[in-house]
Parts: sequence; C-alpha cells; structure tokens
Amino acid sequence: MTRFKLTVAYDGTEFLGWQVQPNGRTVQGTLEQTLQEIVGQARVKVHGSGRTDQGVHARGQVAHVDLETRMGARAILRALNARLPRDVRIMKSEPVEPDFHARRNAHGKEYRYFIHNSETIPPDRRLYALHDYHRLDLDAMRRAAAHFVGEHDVATFMAAGSIVPKTTVRTIYHADLVKNGSSIRFRVSGNGFLYRQVRSMVGYLLRIGRGEEDPDSVRQILLHPIERKARVPTAPPQGLFLWKVWYATP
Amino acid sequence: MTRFKLTVAYDGTEFLGWQVQPNGRTVQGTLEQTLQEIVGQARVKVHGSGRTDQGVHARGQVAHVDLETRMGARAILRALNARLPRDVRIMKSEPVEPDFHARRNAHGKEYRYFIHNSETIPPDRRLYALHDYHRLDLDAMRRAAAHFVGEHDVATFMAAGSIVPKTTVRTIYHADLVKNGSSIRFRVSGNGFLYRQVRSMVGYLLRIGRGEEDPDSVRQILLHPIERKARVPTAPPQGLFLWKVWYATP
Repeated sequence: MTRFKLTVAYDGTEFLGWQVQPNGRTVQGTLEQTLQEIVGQARVKVHGSGRTDQGVHARGQVAHVDLETRMGARAILRALNARLPRDVRIMKSEPVEPDFHARRNAHGKEYRYFIHNSETIPPDRRLYALHDYHRLDLDAMRRAAAHFVGEHDVATFMAAGSIVPKTTVRTIYHADLVKNGSSIRFRVSGNGFLYRQVRSMVGYLLRIGRGEEDPDSVRQILLHPIERKARVPTAPPQGLFLWKVWYATP
Repeated sequence: MTRFKLTVAYDGTEFLGWQVQPNGRTVQGTLEQTLQEIVGQARVKVHGSGRTDQGVHARGQVAHVDLETRMGARAILRALNARLPRDVRIMKSEPVEPDFHARRNAHGKEYRYFIHNSETIPPDRRLYALHDYHRLDLDAMRRAAAHFVGEHDVATFMAAGSIVPKTTVRTIYHADLVKNGSSIRFRVSGNGFLYRQVRSMVGYLLRIGRGEEDPDSVRQILLHPIERKARVPTAPPQGLFLWKVWYATP
C-alpha cells in the first residue's frame, strides 16, 4: 500500500462539487472510480484538503489516496490523465509518507476570485468570473480587504448550511485586489476557511465597492461577529478558484 | 429602415463558426433568427466583418444589419441580450449611416492567441488556449514575430480551403508576445488577414519556440512566399480570439 499526494485541477462547471454524493457527478467520485479502474482495487477512497461547492473551480486542490499498486507516482498521473474526463486534470502526483493527510496537514490555502466589471461580460468569461456592471470603488475595496488580514473571528462570513466548527477564529495571511482591464482578481490566503467564507468576503467587498457599506465597517464586523449577518451576501460560485494548498513537508 | 453596427462577443466552443450554414448552429444564424423574432421582420441579414472558424472566439466581432424598426440602438442591444443564448453577447449597438459596411469599411483587426505552456493545462483554460508542454524559447518567438510587422506577401500563411483572394499582400501593424506565468499571449493587428493566417503564424512561431526553425527564417518565407508551405502548421482554433475591428468613422 502506497500513499500518494495528488494535485488536482478542475473546471467546476459540470460537477456538483468536490464531495461524493449518492446521485450526480462529483470530482471526488470521478477520481475514485477512475483510480479503481486503473489499479483494479475494489474500493478507493480519495481524501481532499476540503470540499468545494458546485460550480467552484480548482487549480491546485490536493488529495491523498492509498493504492495497492506497484505503479509509480508518474505512472499514476499518466494513467489518470489518460482516462479522466477533460474537465479534471492531475497536475502533480507524489508518493508520501503513510501519515500524510491532505486535510489535517494542510498549513494554508490560497483562493482567487475573479470579477468581470463591465456593462456586459464576454461569453468566454461567463463560467469563470462573476459579472458586476456597477461602478466599483477599487480603493475602498482594497482598504476593506486589508482589514481581513490577521487572526479574527470570521463567523459573520460563514454561510449557513454546514456543520458549525469548534472555533470560527481563522488567520488570513494575505488579501489583495488586482485590476487588469475589466478583470478584477481577489486573492486571499489563510490557515483555513469557513463554509463559503471567501464567497461571503467577496459579497461584502462588492457591497463596499458599490458604496453600500463603508470599508472600515469590516473592522467592526470582525470585532463583533454574527450580529450583522444580513449585510453579508454570498457571491456566486463560478468566480471562485481553489488556487493552492500548502504543507510543511511537500 | 435603419442600419445598426453591432459589436459581438462569443464563446466559439459550441458554434460551427460565424457564417450561416444549412445545418448547424452558427453565430450569424443565431443573431439573424433572434433579430427576426425581435423586429418581426421576415428576413434579417447580418453582415460580419469577416468569418471566424469553428471553435474560434470573439471579444469584438463587428457586424451591420438593416432593421425595419423604430427601436433605438440601446433597445436593440437589450432585446438581443435578453433573448440570445449565453454564449453570444452584444457588447455595443450603434446606429450608423446606410453606407456603413462592416467588412468593406474595416480599417484593421486585432487578434489574440493564447497558449498555455506547462506540462498539463488547467481544465478551465482548455477551451480558451492551446496547450503546449514543450520548453519554448520566447526570445526567439519574439524575434520572429517582429519580422511579421510591415507590408508582406503572406501567401505562405494562408491555409488551403478558401477562395484565393486577388492579392495575398497584407500589412501587419503590430505583433508581440507577452508571458504571464504559464500563459503566453500573441497579439497581432493588421489591415486584413488571409484564411487562417493568424493560426498559421502561431503554428510557425511555436515551431520556432521549440527550436525547430530559425527565427530569421520568417524573413525568408515572407520574401519567397508559397515555397515553404509544408513547414507551416495551422494552430488549433480554441486559442484564437477576434479581439477588435476598427473603422475610420465609428
């Protein structure tokens, strides 16, 4: 039995999300089924660093899997990419120690969220960016984003519908916004994220960009969590990419 | 009867191309049918600045159309975007003089071609960029691209399968390559392009990038057209975007 670490990229458009579901196409399910075919193992369980929702994309999701095979990491990568549907690709495959765990050992994650800010969104971007046609005050959004950096109780930015974790305190390492033509990229990294946290942060940043909220209100929300939930909308999934997951030992 | 100038963006993935065909979904056909429904006119003919092939995208295709309607340009745009499928959008709509002609009056066009240069292409880019996993010598490609600029007989970069035009002399105004991470963008503008000229230029630039041809061979090919045809492959369509068409009078 060898444990492998897989770095997985996917186009989330036609998946119900990462996690296996009784009915419907998921990334985890697609990987497990394809690996079962490759190694001829009755049951393969792929453990991701975390879930992603329906419509959310990944450039660098990480998962571990135990395989009863003499195939090397490189052969696994090639066999997977030869059989997987075109909307999932294995970017990297490495043998790891049997105690490596994609979720528990994750030290941090980077997400990117893309916004197309023009009157009409070009069709080639419609599945990979949120369209917002309002005039956005990018300076205000940047000032707000800076308030996210640090250790905070981010409970206000957790969407309903998931199991409430033991603690809602998380550390954001970095948060910035870059504009390139009509495209705005929000990049955020941290030690962990609550359910739909990034999409909620983006939802609130957009309200700030439109002048509906003050940039410094982020500070107040982080100091007094929960209270102001109604003001925080969840941005749609298609703009979101799980960009990277990192570990102390590669 | 009013003539309108429409700026059209589309995701070429699920179209057989721009031009109407007896069977199959085309951008021109989709626009004509939708306009017929909107204005209640028996036959609407949309004239594009030129064709694009199956799988080729557009950010700024331009077309003109004559409509028997009292609707203004803005109302036409809104009615179209409300009814058109999501993979075509009207970016701009303007009333123009009755002698405006989208193809004949075009002064120039800009195309962009995207290449994803890494071992594996992330799935979200697979329909919008060419994947090339070779190590590419970008400096050599840039030197080659510079040779394209100016007035040349570009017959060698015309693919077979189209009507041969009266002259194969064209002027390239600008050609450059920009690298951003694993993404390479080739941008080229000129007064007109032959059939599959941009894709042939990209096909040859990639051979240069891989070291299979010398960058300065472009000069020889432009001085002695036709002869070296076999050396010029046509790059696949999905990396290509018709980015902009411009006119002396807007």
